[in-house]
Amino acid sequence: MHKDVGLEPIRVGLVGLGTVAQGTLSVLAQNAEEISRRIGRPLVITHVGARRDRPGVDLTGIKVSRDLMAVAQDPDVDVFVELIGGTDDALALIEAAIQSGKHVVTANKALIAIHGNRLFQMAEDAGVMIGFEASVAGGIPVIKAIREGLAANQIAWVAGIINGTGNFILTAMREEGRAFDDVLQQAQALGYAEADPTFDVEGIDAAHKLTILAAIAFGMPLSFERVSTEGISKIQSIDLDYAEALGYRIKHLGVARRTESGVELRVHPALIPEKALLANVNGVMNAVQVHGDAVGSTLFYGPGAGSLPTASAVVADLIDVARVLTADPTNRVPHLAFQPSAVADLPILALDQTRCPFYVRLSVRDEVGVLARVTRVLADYQVSLESVIQKEGVEGHPVGLILLTHTVEEASLRKALAVLAAEPIVQGEAVVLRVETLGAGS
Amino acid sequence: MHKDVGLEPIRVGLVGLGTVAQGTLSVLAQNAEEISRRIGRPLVITHVGARRDRPGVDLTGIKVSRDLMAVAQDPDVDVFVELIGGTDDALALIEAAIQSGKHVVTANKALIAIHGNRLFQMAEDAGVMIGFEASVAGGIPVIKAIREGLAANQIAWVAGIINGTGNFILTAMREEGRAFDDVLQQAQALGYAEADPTFDVEGIDAAHKLTILAAIAFGMPLSFERVSTEGISKIQSIDLDYAEALGYRIKHLGVARRTESGVELRVHPALIPEKALLANVNGVMNAVQVHGDAVGSTLFYGPGAGSLPTASAVVADLIDVARVLTADPTNRVPHLAFQPSAVADLPILALDQTRCPFYVRLSVRDEVGVLARVTRVLADYQVSLESVIQKEGVEGHPVGLILLTHTVEEASLRKALAVLAAEPIVQGEAVVLRVETLGAGS
Repeated sequence: MHKDVGLEPIRVGLVGLGTVAQGTLSVLAQNAEEISRRIGRPLVITHVGARRDRPGVDLTGIKVSRDLMAVAQDPDVDVFVELIGGTDDALALIEAAIQSGKHVVTANKALIAIHGNRLFQMAEDAGVMIGFEASVAGGIPVIKAIREGLAANQIAWVAGIINGTGNFILTAMREEGRAFDDVLQQAQALGYAEADPTFDVEGIDAAHKLTILAAIAFGMPLSFERVSTEGISKIQSIDLDYAEALGYRIKHLGVARRTESGVELRVHPALIPEKALLANVNGVMNAVQVHGDAVGSTLFYGPGAGSLPTASAVVADLIDVARVLTADPTNRVPHLAFQPSAVADLPILALDQTRCPFYVRLSVRDEVGVLARVTRVLADYQVSLESVIQKEGVEGHPVGLILLTHTVEEASLRKALAVLAAEPIVQGEAVVLRVETLGAGS
Repeated sequence: MHKDVGLEPIRVGLVGLGTVAQGTLSVLAQNAEEISRRIGRPLVITHVGARRDRPGVDLTGIKVSRDLMAVAQDPDVDVFVELIGGTDDALALIEAAIQSGKHVVTANKALIAIHGNRLFQMAEDAGVMIGFEASVAGGIPVIKAIREGLAANQIAWVAGIINGTGNFILTAMREEGRAFDDVLQQAQALGYAEADPTFDVEGIDAAHKLTILAAIAFGMPLSFERVSTEGISKIQSIDLDYAEALGYRIKHLGVARRTESGVELRVHPALIPEKALLANVNGVMNAVQVHGDAVGSTLFYGPGAGSLPTASAVVADLIDVARVLTADPTNRVPHLAFQPSAVADLPILALDQTRCPFYVRLSVRDEVGVLARVTRVLADYQVSLESVIQKEGVEGHPVGLILLTHTVEEASLRKALAVLAAEPIVQGEAVVLRVETLGAGS
């Protein structure tokens, strides 16, 4: 017997009318019947808040307010969907919605990464849920996968291609041999990159997402300010080529790893084995590899952005909210995967404390004994080499020396490179990239 | 405020002490604290049913019964976990558990595929849940992904490598140029294949899993008896090579696709584009690609079998059960993704009604005019060709003619091939394999 409550529509209030909001309106309209068949009642947008009209967006039958706060505080709204982005107004609106007893769904990664700890506490106190599946990797249900699907596991590490713009740029640089600036301009023309691309290419967007993944994987508070972040704007085509010659591809990764001495939280370009599935994730696609102690390695792949894919995640969260409306809040899936009382601070390692193999490209004088001197200095700092490529040069010009090290603490490598930098045989600055074996080796 | 109910342990009764059961005992013991941190209370195995002792399995502190029914009917058990496999005893035990008001978790794909419709109806009536995440693709949370993560979508198709044994065999045949029988023997020696490998290599195991995936993707009843199933035992190395020359790899796929005229449900070897992520899923790994109208293509990858990976899914289901204990059954995730009243029969297409491109290898006489005659007959049945490889032969011996067709209804191709088979220029039987473009083309 279905109770009557199962037949009442869920009333959704939405603020924002940008790309993702339009996708959400479209998915809810187009798949209304399919969604009702799943949850046993309709999901209906009853109130939209938008500061201005958007030509072409059909809001027939929906109450529209210029004052976004009117939506957050509307007593006739069950779930508040925040899709305006940014961290100031969005924060105030979500706080108001929680205070008026509404569940919240948001795609706002910056907001969750920076203010999530406080918002989740408020939500617990108010007995409401905040859904944020759309904040990481767009349409890929990776938060659900980690928080529920892999809940039996101790998660050892997470490594993801979680910024589509960066992956589009690196893919085009590799496949077409083009320079960073050239591809960035194309990405901007295609709408994949913003006019100010800093958030994407310098890794800030990926750091927001990694912050969220690490928290739900390890049961630690959101710690955005502790993520070590490097972008891809300095990546050169020549290094993509050398990486390929060594059997690797360069991807912009977010990596969160539990080690005995602490948690690594880092976003940076990395060489990954070309046979790894993650190395074959191209263009604007995203993928997150998750390693659990019971399951081993799993990977979740799909579109990391875009109107309809992101809307897919927003609406999935709405459906989740609809399903737990009658559940005792104690038994709901906790926001950060672990019970609030069980979320524990973990030591976070600085980048120079992390251990991995490295790719190093040096410009050296083309003379006898250079390789011997370089390997001598590296050995003094416990840096051993897995392979070396020495590029033939033109007499009298510096030549490239490409080194692949074994696993070493970053601080040791940096010290060795500082010594080498002071020697006349080494010219210019060393190019240093991390290598992620993704569990395929040490 | 947590209620007291949140602190009581969930009491689990488990029958079976095989590989997956031992993995489940091990995961629950090893990750007990992590799991408590997630759900706020312990998950404890209190009663195990096993017909005989298993040396090396530690059951200290657990009640053990030789009579498995004693576990299914134990009033002190909250959730009944069935890990004995098979469809007779397992069915009776699960029915008894449901009748005594217990939630059920099972990894038994054959049971769900064959008896699921009835069991889910019983469970609805009794207000209990049946968790079956472990029944498809081992540790990959693909049922959760489709049923919840992609719930906003109309699913257009699902295509998966869902039998690790078959994928191990095809991978080794391709990478090492070995014959089917040879690799099968190795797979048996490694424990990847049973002494009687029929279920795996003839596609029955994959058909069980596809049945489940199709039901939750499309909102249709489980329809195992309607799946068209072909195995991989007739695959020859030469076809793997030709596929590669054409830019494809051969994988054993389960495909469920919604078309305007009905649903395709089929398990068979297929050529897939070598750049597709699915083509790069090797060895015993599984992956399922899911195409939704909002999200586009997503892919879920991981270990499809094995003790701990499958246990990861069993325990995730136990955690899900723990979380919905206090939820109104109306609002729980429905077993088949859609509300029971919304699950609707859909027409299912026979194999000869399905449309796709085909790979065809013919042995033909090495004489002038053969290709013209073959293409003439194919054209008579509306079969057009995308590419042709004609293998040079030794004078007087038949030569190989490899054809890649455009999309065509299978019945048309079969008719054309029947005509050709009657002609003296064609010798022996044609090798026919389907091509799946996975959304990359028509």
